[in-house]
Amino acid sequence: MPTEKPADTTVFNRRESEARSYCRSFPTVFTKANGSIMTAEDGREYIDFLAGCSSLNYGHNDPDMKAALIEHVSNDGIAHGLDMFTTQKAAFLETFERLILKPRGMDYKVMMTGPTGTNAVEAAIKLARKVTERRNVIAFTNAFHGMTMGSLALTGNSGKREGAGGGSLADVTHMPFENAMGENDTLEYIEWALDNPSSGIDAPAAFIVEPVQGEGGLNAASKEWLQGIQRIARKHGALFIIDDIQAGIGRTGTYFSTEEYGLDPDMITQAKSFSGMGLPFAALLIKPEHDIWKPAEHNGTFRGNTHAFVTARVALEKFWADDAFSKEVQRKGEYLRERLQAMADLIPDATLKGRGMMRGIDVGSGELAGEICAKCFENGLIIETSGAHDEVVKVLAALTTPDEIFTKGLDILEAALRDAIGNNQIAAE
Amino acid sequence: MPTEKPADTTVFNRRESEARSYCRSFPTVFTKANGSIMTAEDGREYIDFLAGCSSLNYGHNDPDMKAALIEHVSNDGIAHGLDMFTTQKAAFLETFERLILKPRGMDYKVMMTGPTGTNAVEAAIKLARKVTERRNVIAFTNAFHGMTMGSLALTGNSGKREGAGGGSLADVTHMPFENAMGENDTLEYIEWALDNPSSGIDAPAAFIVEPVQGEGGLNAASKEWLQGIQRIARKHGALFIIDDIQAGIGRTGTYFSTEEYGLDPDMITQAKSFSGMGLPFAALLIKPEHDIWKPAEHNGTFRGNTHAFVTARVALEKFWADDAFSKEVQRKGEYLRERLQAMADLIPDATLKGRGMMRGIDVGSGELAGEICAKCFENGLIIETSGAHDEVVKVLAALTTPDEIFTKGLDILEAALRDAIGNNQIAAE
Amino acid sequence: MPTEKPADTTVFNRRESEARSYCRSFPTVFTKANGSIMTAEDGREYIDFLAGCSSLNYGHNDPDMKAALIEHVSNDGIAHGLDMFTTQKAAFLETFERLILKPRGMDYKVMMTGPTGTNAVEAAIKLARKVTERRNVIAFTNAFHGMTMGSLALTGNSGKREGAGGGSLADVTHMPFENAMGENDTLEYIEWALDNPSSGIDAPAAFIVEPVQGEGGLNAASKEWLQGIQRIARKHGALFIIDDIQAGIGRTGTYFSTEEYGLDPDMITQAKSFSGMGLPFAALLIKPEHDIWKPAEHNGTFRGNTHAFVTARVALEKFWADDAFSKEVQRKGEYLRERLQAMADLIPDATLKGRGMMRGIDVGSGELAGEICAKCFENGLIIETSGAHDEVVKVLAALTTPDEIFTKGLDILEAALRDAIGNNQIAAE
Amino acid sequence: MPTEKPADTTVFNRRESEARSYCRSFPTVFTKANGSIMTAEDGREYIDFLAGCSSLNYGHNDPDMKAALIEHVSNDGIAHGLDMFTTQKAAFLETFERLILKPRGMDYKVMMTGPTGTNAVEAAIKLARKVTERRNVIAFTNAFHGMTMGSLALTGNSGKREGAGGGSLADVTHMPFENAMGENDTLEYIEWALDNPSSGIDAPAAFIVEPVQGEGGLNAASKEWLQGIQRIARKHGALFIIDDIQAGIGRTGTYFSTEEYGLDPDMITQAKSFSGMGLPFAALLIKPEHDIWKPAEHNGTFRGNTHAFVTARVALEKFWADDAFSKEVQRKGEYLRERLQAMADLIPDATLKGRGMMRGIDVGSGELAGEICAKCFENGLIIETSGAHDEVVKVLAALTTPDEIFTKGLDILEAALRDAIGNNQIAAE
Repeated sequence: MPTEKPADTTVFNRRESEARSYCRSFPTVFTKANGSIMTAEDGREYIDFLAGCSSLNYGHNDPDMKAALIEHVSNDGIAHGLDMFTTQKAAFLETFERLILKPRGMDYKVMMTGPTGTNAVEAAIKLARKVTERRNVIAFTNAFHGMTMGSLALTGNSGKREGAGGGSLADVTHMPFENAMGENDTLEYIEWALDNPSSGIDAPAAFIVEPVQGEGGLNAASKEWLQGIQRIARKHGALFIIDDIQAGIGRTGTYFSTEEYGLDPDMITQAKSFSGMGLPFAALLIKPEHDIWKPAEHNGTFRGNTHAFVTARVALEKFWADDAFSKEVQRKGEYLRERLQAMADLIPDATLKGRGMMRGIDVGSGELAGEICAKCFENGLIIETSGAHDEVVKVLAALTTPDEIFTKGLDILEAALRDAIGNNQIAAE
Repeated sequence: MPTEKPADTTVFNRRESEARSYCRSFPTVFTKANGSIMTAEDGREYIDFLAGCSSLNYGHNDPDMKAALIEHVSNDGIAHGLDMFTTQKAAFLETFERLILKPRGMDYKVMMTGPTGTNAVEAAIKLARKVTERRNVIAFTNAFHGMTMGSLALTGNSGKREGAGGGSLADVTHMPFENAMGENDTLEYIEWALDNPSSGIDAPAAFIVEPVQGEGGLNAASKEWLQGIQRIARKHGALFIIDDIQAGIGRTGTYFSTEEYGLDPDMITQAKSFSGMGLPFAALLIKPEHDIWKPAEHNGTFRGNTHAFVTARVALEKFWADDAFSKEVQRKGEYLRERLQAMADLIPDATLKGRGMMRGIDVGSGELAGEICAKCFENGLIIETSGAHDEVVKVLAALTTPDEIFTKGLDILEAALRDAIGNNQIAAE
Repeated sequence: MPTEKPADTTVFNRRESEARSYCRSFPTVFTKANGSIMTAEDGREYIDFLAGCSSLNYGHNDPDMKAALIEHVSNDGIAHGLDMFTTQKAAFLETFERLILKPRGMDYKVMMTGPTGTNAVEAAIKLARKVTERRNVIAFTNAFHGMTMGSLALTGNSGKREGAGGGSLADVTHMPFENAMGENDTLEYIEWALDNPSSGIDAPAAFIVEPVQGEGGLNAASKEWLQGIQRIARKHGALFIIDDIQAGIGRTGTYFSTEEYGLDPDMITQAKSFSGMGLPFAALLIKPEHDIWKPAEHNGTFRGNTHAFVTARVALEKFWADDAFSKEVQRKGEYLRERLQAMADLIPDATLKGRGMMRGIDVGSGELAGEICAKCFENGLIIETSGAHDEVVKVLAALTTPDEIFTKGLDILEAALRDAIGNNQIAAE
Repeated sequence: MPTEKPADTTVFNRRESEARSYCRSFPTVFTKANGSIMTAEDGREYIDFLAGCSSLNYGHNDPDMKAALIEHVSNDGIAHGLDMFTTQKAAFLETFERLILKPRGMDYKVMMTGPTGTNAVEAAIKLARKVTERRNVIAFTNAFHGMTMGSLALTGNSGKREGAGGGSLADVTHMPFENAMGENDTLEYIEWALDNPSSGIDAPAAFIVEPVQGEGGLNAASKEWLQGIQRIARKHGALFIIDDIQAGIGRTGTYFSTEEYGLDPDMITQAKSFSGMGLPFAALLIKPEHDIWKPAEHNGTFRGNTHAFVTARVALEKFWADDAFSKEVQRKGEYLRERLQAMADLIPDATLKGRGMMRGIDVGSGELAGEICAKCFENGLIIETSGAHDEVVKVLAALTTPDEIFTKGLDILEAALRDAIGNNQIAAE
């Protein structure tokens, strides 16, 4: 019977497409992972401050999720059931309703889209166009919503867009995110553009916004700005869509990233940490009045990953049955803020970005940020950059990271940053 | 600690989006599954002739894949590692190279796209446009390639297309599949349209074709027609893409559905049964000279589902180390053909569709096909329809289905078909 | 006061864009023209078998139109009045109603679009989309409808389309014209494509068709085929638009080119010979129930060229008050057919194209056709090619050409054709 | 022989499309016009402050142009010659080169597009896309560039855009014109959006700008802003296109509207007053290095209206042989500014718009502006509104308007404005 062989490290270059990316920053072969620690084949351990780009908010291989998954598999629990009714889906839906929707007074239908964030986004914009019978969707500078053609049209990044090689990225208007234009008020600009019947901006089907732009540089929109976008959307008959794939599911300190902002979005996307354990899983939350899909009008083979139903249910019961976890995340986020502020103070013009446990430092250049991250990896810390110029060092540690490990990781980061600054100063002298 | 509760059957209506579909045909709640049998909460067992729409070619919960997955999870094997190097990915790539590519003399790079078929298709057409610097992609009548905007533009089905609510489905020309126009030679038409500089058809970046159209009615293209499409593509500087998501991975009797057709596609998509166990997993095979992606130019959070690497490797080693499985599938496919032909003979003008273990009967109307499938379900058989008018009763049994169960399932189908014909005759009299 | 200087022939190369075209085929400088004769600066006279590409159906400088225009200008008649009410517009509309619409039992509103054919086509497709709330427009192989982006998307010719340099030519489906696919029945194909809900062809807003494709090779659609297109359009809720810009206004022997075909188009375009004298002028005829434009929703500075109203009215009164002119054109068209048939018989596989006074010979290659036309010009005859490969020698003489001149021109053509064949035979030997 | 009949005023309602517009503001039937006076059928004379929307900068029926046109027609001068070489085209090109290009040190090729402004714009954007191999074109708020699909995509006005009924208006980014966002610096925004690789704005093929937005509310861009746009275009590899259709040809006091701004546009459009006499005529001026058109790659039946060549040449020789006319226009423009300022001072918050002889008053509401214009017409003055809300009363008198008539027209306007304000004040009390 098959067994795992030791890694043939040349096979990646030989057989894996040039599109591969993170492996270029972290050139070692990982074998296993637990909590906030990833272990390489050579036995070396790394603290993980990337957490699957926020897909592992509860850390790697949470013991309760593991146990539930092993039990499910051992019992011949369904692995793939298309979108048929299953015991596991029912349990998940019931739990999501009981622990997430009801306590927050939220009434949404759950659409199991294909198990990727981009699929949830594609479903959202298709539905917004169906509902409003309009085509234009407004997305924001530095936005990242995915790589399939519908989501890619929403994405700001020119490098990503050029990957489409010239196919149609139509029917989207790109608008400035909060603070994108220095001191200029972007809400005022957006409202002006939509109010002006001669702006050339077609009446929008929807606004789609990430409350904190994960790939775009950890830009965190304020309560007031998001309320403004929602108000403008309502005024112009457009749906208001929150893309909470990276910022949601506890990352900012509450289950949804905008719970305390008094918003009432028409749709919310869920993916990344939605399964709890890093399994592919995504959904679109839809206000019931907009759930006008015909059966199978948007479908997909892997909708409703049953393994993910099992682990996602465990995650909800373990972390969201009361507010203890939320408070813990907020406490850690504050500690993170303090540590990063101290580091930012070491670099002229560096600024703090993000909120909650989704924070980073804009160090001013992608070169410096890259140097810092590379040094961290040498010293056993997995950490990545973000932003239009990769200029933000981004901390996306698991929310469950023990204090000791969290401190140790931040110490490594601070040392790398001091080291990089020192080198640069020497280079400048 | 959390345990699974008995299903609250009302929760689906209350909380799941109207887009849900298969659950409408099979209104019971499933709990577990093994091989070709699915078991409902009430203990009733069903023979599965749907097999996750060809995602479960090796049946449910294959014991060796289960064991490997449980071992992997138990050992804190990585669940989510973005696209970092992992022991499991290396093992999978090495195995795929050794058992699939090399014996067939094929040289392809493997691109881990997002773990859904539509994502592999989107990556393929983006890359074709990059490579050729052209925009137009030619797809075929009755084609189904997925529901995200790029793939949806390729899809023939008007109902699916209308789900986009008016967004751009541009840059695609739809051409007739083999036999789509009765006796007219569609190759001749396609070649004429591309040769004619005034046809209005822009020079294509690619042709994308399903060798057997799974959703489109089990239309199986001939060797000659596919060779013709490849020849026309080459002649006009277009890439030739095989979408083997539903027909590949053994379904027609060989690993790739066109192995015996002497083709040399520029790209091949893989999904559905690619993980072996029904886990979300997809890839795009790319000829090395076309692998011009920049790092991360197409990315995604769930690329390279590590659980799927484990089970997919086991599947390759268990079923594709020699040609025994292939011969077994071909034998079963022949038996299936005989049984379906006997049934088709009962209905005037009914025709056999498909090939290998991907066959069905065009019974002439969606109403009759639906009636047959509903009767089957009453009698313990899960089976679905296909085709532009849902007029094809489609058998997609696991390739590993034991002969006894296979025969039993076909008996149920034949009885349902006889019953439905009888009713219709009575109704007609 | 200014006077005309003798032509500085180098100024064209120095100052006129490379887009210039006909002047390359006819490299002399013309000064004046009367009836079917154009006179160059050097005094040489040429018989005109091009007639402004059917813009001069009544010949150059018809004496009655000239007189009316001179009187109008002398009296300070309005030259430019935007779309204000003018005496001249009223007179034109009244005459068009009395002599064209009423006798044919046709009820249409006249929309003065910008004074070019392409503008009338753009208005037609915009209106069809407004009326039907659909986007897709069906156009045909070898179609030519103009060079602005909306019309260009309808145009078959790849060279013309590439002139757009990659901008959007979306929302059009190109279908085969009658006989475009050899013996295959294109109506059957078109109907099949629209009836098939999985053909990928979106429900059309309109069909737009040239009854005789002027630029596309003088392909003349039959009564039965056009009735078929109209029937399919009606069946699928699409508008039926006749583009009569080149074939209409007497060219085929009746005012509209399809008068005897029992059709009832929703819109008809008019341009080219619409002014009678070759002045820029175009209109869109719209069935009243479709005239849902809001004021100025489609506008333009030069709508309603008042000079053209004057000459167009004279043309209607002079040529269309009874059926004498129509019969005369039909007689000449028959003579033309006989002469061209005799010439076609000289070339193996040559075929006659077109109908009425819009005829030509497909000589099999653009090279031969070009050689024939060049020889004609040497011998005092202006004549051009047509077709996807410029393979058709096209006779578009003024409908008023006196028999003697018409015969002389055809004699020159026949001699050039015999000469070219002889050369080619010698070259082949 | 045909003669003009007295106008049948009902024929317009009966037969002219609902798209008609100006006739709704000026409900009388005009018969003739001379200089700045239009005369209705009932003999009433109107001062014309609309001048064919700037198509009649030299007034109606200039005696020298009339004489030249009558002479041309009388002598059987060519009326329609496609784009063949003609004596008249040579004379026009030579004169344009001698009097316009050379004195200004400008080196441009002249492309005779179809004889409408929108056709010149379509040619410009097609060529920009060919030259740069990019698709995106940047246009501005309140821009109006025409009604065919390519130009319409550039146009800001939502009412006009909706006339397309949902067809593709892709490949354009709309940016704020100078001062469009109150005190915010729009150059800064535009530069930021293009510099930011994650703004979602694709690299542009071109910027197209009207130096004074004629339909958009007489917004006059400053020298500094236009230089800024040119600088940004150069920086980003985009062509810089001036649409001088309404503001050019003397309207602002110089032949081109930006002669004194130190710009070096890649292309300039010409139409409206280009023929001198209001005949359909348009051209695109192209820097020689960008004139990469293939022959006939953009063509059209009415390119090079020969009647217009004659009158346009006379216009150039009469008005642009020295700077006397230019100075005269500047003097009148200054008088106009003074008179309008005095009127604007009567209305709280009213502002002066435009420059040269292209000026108006933003009276704050379309209702008030419409009331003023209606009163003017009652009192014998033809004048129209402009702007996104029709809130600007726009004076577009012929540049040749005699002082006495000009003063009289302005007196009528002032009286109407005072009257309207008075009524509104009474209504408000």
